[in-house]
Amino acid sequence: MIHFECDYNEGAHENVLRRLSQTNAEQTSGYGEDGYCAQAAEKIRSLCEAPNAQAHFLVGGTQANATVIDAALRPHQGVLSAHTGHIAVHETGAVEACGHKVLTLPGADGKITAAQIAAAVDEHWADPSFEHIVQPGMVYLSHPTELGTLYSLAELQEISRVCREKCLFLFVDGARLAYGLAARGADVTLPELAKRCDVFTFGGTKAGALFGEAVVITNPAIAKDFRYLIKRHGGMLAKGRLLGLQFLALLENDLYLSLGNHAIAQAGRIRDAFAAVGIPLAFDSPANLLFPILTKAQADYLQTKYAFYLIDPLDNNRYISRFCTSWATRPEDVEQLTNDIRKL
Amino acid sequence: MIHFECDYNEGAHENVLRRLSQTNAEQTSGYGEDGYCAQAAEKIRSLCEAPNAQAHFLVGGTQANATVIDAALRPHQGVLSAHTGHIAVHETGAVEACGHKVLTLPGADGKITAAQIAAAVDEHWADPSFEHIVQPGMVYLSHPTELGTLYSLAELQEISRVCREKCLFLFVDGARLAYGLAARGADVTLPELAKRCDVFTFGGTKAGALFGEAVVITNPAIAKDFRYLIKRHGGMLAKGRLLGLQFLALLENDLYLSLGNHAIAQAGRIRDAFAAVGIPLAFDSPANLLFPILTKAQADYLQTKYAFYLIDPLDNNRYISRFCTSWATRPEDVEQLTNDIRKL
Amino acid sequence: MIHFECDYNEGAHENVLRRLSQTNAEQTSGYGEDGYCAQAAEKIRSLCEAPNAQAHFLVGGTQANATVIDAALRPHQGVLSAHTGHIAVHETGAVEACGHKVLTLPGADGKITAAQIAAAVDEHWADPSFEHIVQPGMVYLSHPTELGTLYSLAELQEISRVCREKCLFLFVDGARLAYGLAARGADVTLPELAKRCDVFTFGGTKAGALFGEAVVITNPAIAKDFRYLIKRHGGMLAKGRLLGLQFLALLENDLYLSLGNHAIAQAGRIRDAFAAVGIPLAFDSPANLLFPILTKAQADYLQTKYAFYLIDPLDNNRYISRFCTSWATRPEDVEQLTNDIRKL
Amino acid sequence: MIHFECDYNEGAHENVLRRLSQTNAEQTSGYGEDGYCAQAAEKIRSLCEAPNAQAHFLVGGTQANATVIDAALRPHQGVLSAHTGHIAVHETGAVEACGHKVLTLPGADGKITAAQIAAAVDEHWADPSFEHIVQPGMVYLSHPTELGTLYSLAELQEISRVCREKCLFLFVDGARLAYGLAARGADVTLPELAKRCDVFTFGGTKAGALFGEAVVITNPAIAKDFRYLIKRHGGMLAKGRLLGLQFLALLENDLYLSLGNHAIAQAGRIRDAFAAVGIPLAFDSPANLLFPILTKAQADYLQTKYAFYLIDPLDNNRYISRFCTSWATRPEDVEQLTNDIRKL
Repeated sequence: MIHFECDYNEGAHENVLRRLSQTNAEQTSGYGEDGYCAQAAEKIRSLCEAPNAQAHFLVGGTQANATVIDAALRPHQGVLSAHTGHIAVHETGAVEACGHKVLTLPGADGKITAAQIAAAVDEHWADPSFEHIVQPGMVYLSHPTELGTLYSLAELQEISRVCREKCLFLFVDGARLAYGLAARGADVTLPELAKRCDVFTFGGTKAGALFGEAVVITNPAIAKDFRYLIKRHGGMLAKGRLLGLQFLALLENDLYLSLGNHAIAQAGRIRDAFAAVGIPLAFDSPANLLFPILTKAQADYLQTKYAFYLIDPLDNNRYISRFCTSWATRPEDVEQLTNDIRKL
Repeated sequence: MIHFECDYNEGAHENVLRRLSQTNAEQTSGYGEDGYCAQAAEKIRSLCEAPNAQAHFLVGGTQANATVIDAALRPHQGVLSAHTGHIAVHETGAVEACGHKVLTLPGADGKITAAQIAAAVDEHWADPSFEHIVQPGMVYLSHPTELGTLYSLAELQEISRVCREKCLFLFVDGARLAYGLAARGADVTLPELAKRCDVFTFGGTKAGALFGEAVVITNPAIAKDFRYLIKRHGGMLAKGRLLGLQFLALLENDLYLSLGNHAIAQAGRIRDAFAAVGIPLAFDSPANLLFPILTKAQADYLQTKYAFYLIDPLDNNRYISRFCTSWATRPEDVEQLTNDIRKL
Repeated sequence: MIHFECDYNEGAHENVLRRLSQTNAEQTSGYGEDGYCAQAAEKIRSLCEAPNAQAHFLVGGTQANATVIDAALRPHQGVLSAHTGHIAVHETGAVEACGHKVLTLPGADGKITAAQIAAAVDEHWADPSFEHIVQPGMVYLSHPTELGTLYSLAELQEISRVCREKCLFLFVDGARLAYGLAARGADVTLPELAKRCDVFTFGGTKAGALFGEAVVITNPAIAKDFRYLIKRHGGMLAKGRLLGLQFLALLENDLYLSLGNHAIAQAGRIRDAFAAVGIPLAFDSPANLLFPILTKAQADYLQTKYAFYLIDPLDNNRYISRFCTSWATRPEDVEQLTNDIRKL
Repeated sequence: MIHFECDYNEGAHENVLRRLSQTNAEQTSGYGEDGYCAQAAEKIRSLCEAPNAQAHFLVGGTQANATVIDAALRPHQGVLSAHTGHIAVHETGAVEACGHKVLTLPGADGKITAAQIAAAVDEHWADPSFEHIVQPGMVYLSHPTELGTLYSLAELQEISRVCREKCLFLFVDGARLAYGLAARGADVTLPELAKRCDVFTFGGTKAGALFGEAVVITNPAIAKDFRYLIKRHGGMLAKGRLLGLQFLALLENDLYLSLGNHAIAQAGRIRDAFAAVGIPLAFDSPANLLFPILTKAQADYLQTKYAFYLIDPLDNNRYISRFCTSWATRPEDVEQLTNDIRKL
């Protein structure tokens, strides 16, 4: 079976493993207070052109999301998210575990708009019973989204403007950010993220690390005491340097960008193959996720050799399927897959 | 500076790293549903002689503690712990974050007794206002404790008996269990732990893994839906196999025991050196932690070359200090240290 | 201004006040452990034909809802509710404050169906990532609903059957139950509620008490230690007898039913008036809430003399409005209103 | 049986009941947004000489405490309290239910000192692992304390000074404040409380109301959005005017002070009787609680006619007992009791 179902099937890029091996015998302080974490944080600040930003390193995405939201909101506040957002559907209530409601907005393609956000906040304040309703306090976007779609810079800027006008924190979940940065036509950059958001994550797990998410915080109100929050959420890794070291490896010579480009290129080959045989895509997803609409017969045929998801049944016995490439996708596997697609 | 302040200054044992490297390119399912995790769980069941136990793998100890406690207790219940217990003082309120109170009992040497537990529960039920008071629902022990002390098998058995009689879950935090199992004279074994507790952890982080704690659950009431709880607490590692692989390496040929024995032997050399110069130990700690009582001058002298903690000031300008050995402690470093101790 | 906007504009029925005055100087135990609470609980068990049920008395509805849900669910579980359910939209996240997600189902008329519930649960268990998703653990209905609609006995029975088949607790919020029991054609009775639900509330606040909600629990799993949960949620009234006394007054000679009948009769007069002038109702609400669809001009005209809500704008400058009668509605006020409606 | 066990055995003062009866048929807005609550809040601001303070009215003390603490603290912060504090021992973990740890300080007489507070905060920041430890964020005092003791104005001022220096909120629980204000020699006044604390409560339940606690907030950081917090905690009474009306009755012509003086006078008679026969008091409690140390025989004798608590066993078969007077204590009951004491 050749795996195209997610971007965390393999271990780590060789540079990451090498770094860990080379430094294995060194003795350092624990809990992220070592020199490697400091270097990695400095490198992130530099790439983000955000000299005052904090960068923290956590093990996983759900942990990072819950910690950020818990650090930012007061108890009666909730977080606006697309109804398909990861925090809304795939974290077993980790946000509710902190007492916060996820306030969902419909978003057919995984995205929400500045107008939707403004309307939701205006509706809250216009309701005479507003104090009986969870107050929107933050906006959560993912970039790329769960459906592989991307925000344009103009969209991000407009959302940022609305958030500041309406006193909402803006949080961008970048679990797949490496692929968002590398995607063709994408114009959201690290400095723009740092400038437009109050906090964002930059995922390592899906981009060549064994594990690790960087949390980049530009708003001091969220940054204050953030390490307490990390510890409280069980996210303070004893051998914290493992996170710093991995990010150093990924950021060195823009390795994360090369890995992103690789995944995007492989996704492009698969996209072209589906297009060539007239199989439509459910979403316009320029990053590393593809959502072809397959008939049952087509899905059955491909599933004999390839692992991928059928995420939603449609009418006429069709399905929205999901194919995912990654830093580790082997071109020869894509070669096989595209050949088989062309036989559909 | 030579580090004796904790047992997580270095990376991982070479066998652990080798396993990770060798399997790096393999594609497996995520979230702990891979074959390596299954094998490691099976191996743990076998070592524990507990064929029906569940074994789950989490990244860190605070996370593991909070997840276990959250899985076990109803909202109005709390967990009894020594006042020095890790959950009571060093987890930034991770247990309270789940809504549970840590009910502390005094324990001069880090241990609590069956009699104390029974008295606390009896006092609860004897109070006419018992419904206004957090109900004890679980007992938390650590073995070894924060002060390096160990429970004898007889003590564990008696605590277990009381817990069952009083309807309390018994949870043993084994973050340093490898050293507890290897300590001289220790008679608590894995099968006894599995038999006497409802749940215990078996730490990898401090015993040669990069990271990882195994949670071994023998009580089905806690085991039910435990993976939901892991995810909710942000503890479900995407590349879950990294945890299974590391535990496989540690459990193979009883590597964890060899590593434990090594640390115990090195601690013994240091213990002997302090004894030789008449420096007393604050606690009778047979595992890998030593708590010599140093004068300010002695501490200052040793701190010029060695990192260790001064954990508590005493009268007469003296301190309880803490020295820690580990799987990675180099005998030549111990040689230097003991030579310097003998000069005190 | 004559008030038709809710059923808690006035104080309490005279019998309730009289009871409180007559017993004012008596000395009783606090916290609901007095004889009046015991008598009221016994009376409820008798009316419900549920000799083993527990009845507890809390001050308010949001408090009662949160306490019940917190007592019933494990941390990773959520509660299914109509998207218009009170817990979903009007309790400022009191359910999320206990860590639980409200899992909403669409319900145009405020109701949800057994088929929707079954489908939601089946979908959960069919998802390969089910452990990453909040598990449905309870169903929350309100009767009457927020939109004044009622469940038929057949509907309640079918929902109850599905809940038991799917291992979900069934909770009915009866903040306006007095009006649901009195409504024309309603066939859900107290004994049926006790038989079909695991827990339900019977509201006093909106039915002639100063305040007070009875929580009736038939499932021992929820009943266990429930008083701890009340205290923990800040709901244990020091002078608990005030609640028992009020419910005794309401239950004596079926006063609650007389009060319910009064409100239903007054609502019927208003309903007839709207029908007479061809103003449609948005929902078929046989209890004490009416939702006529008014033009802006009609609403403006009526609002010069009457307080009522405009709850939803429609197209063509029309609104769904809400009129509410109660135990305290004065027939002469209804006379005025219906005369004015007939002028529309 | 004559009751001396608490100050909430009876209903309400006649003025309170009369107010409720007189206004019973009026129609007002719900949820505390009526004119009576506004008047009561204004009256409190005036008595406190704090024109910018917010005053909110909640039903009960546990609810008020949890809501205030939840409004004030960030998740990783805890609240310093005497180990006998109500929030520490008698609220079934209501503070932990909001995720906050109660950080207890020893206080033999129910009080804590400015020096203790300063030391606890200094110790926190001096610990190299401070981020692993719950951060003190608030100080909770009760006045009178659970042991009937009072803070002097000098003590309160010094605690306030330390709190401001150390960036801690200061919260005074005044469930029995009426008795604290009336106690002989007490020099803490309402204006001083308003000036020295960030928030305090002023209890009605124990001072002649049916129920009700006023929360007075002078710090805008806690006041912001406080009504959301009230609702979220289930504390927003539908017929909110009942609270405003009761406080208006209590504050009118300083009724609360008269009631306080009455209770203090009755307590004084009992205190004198114990002194006359040489029975010592465990604490110097000038308010309405007395803690005589009784032998078993003495306690048995008095318990044949009087209800009071034995709160702590001492050696030699003696007990610390608790007698409580209130606004409702009848002088003839005190006459009987003092006569019987004199026979001991």
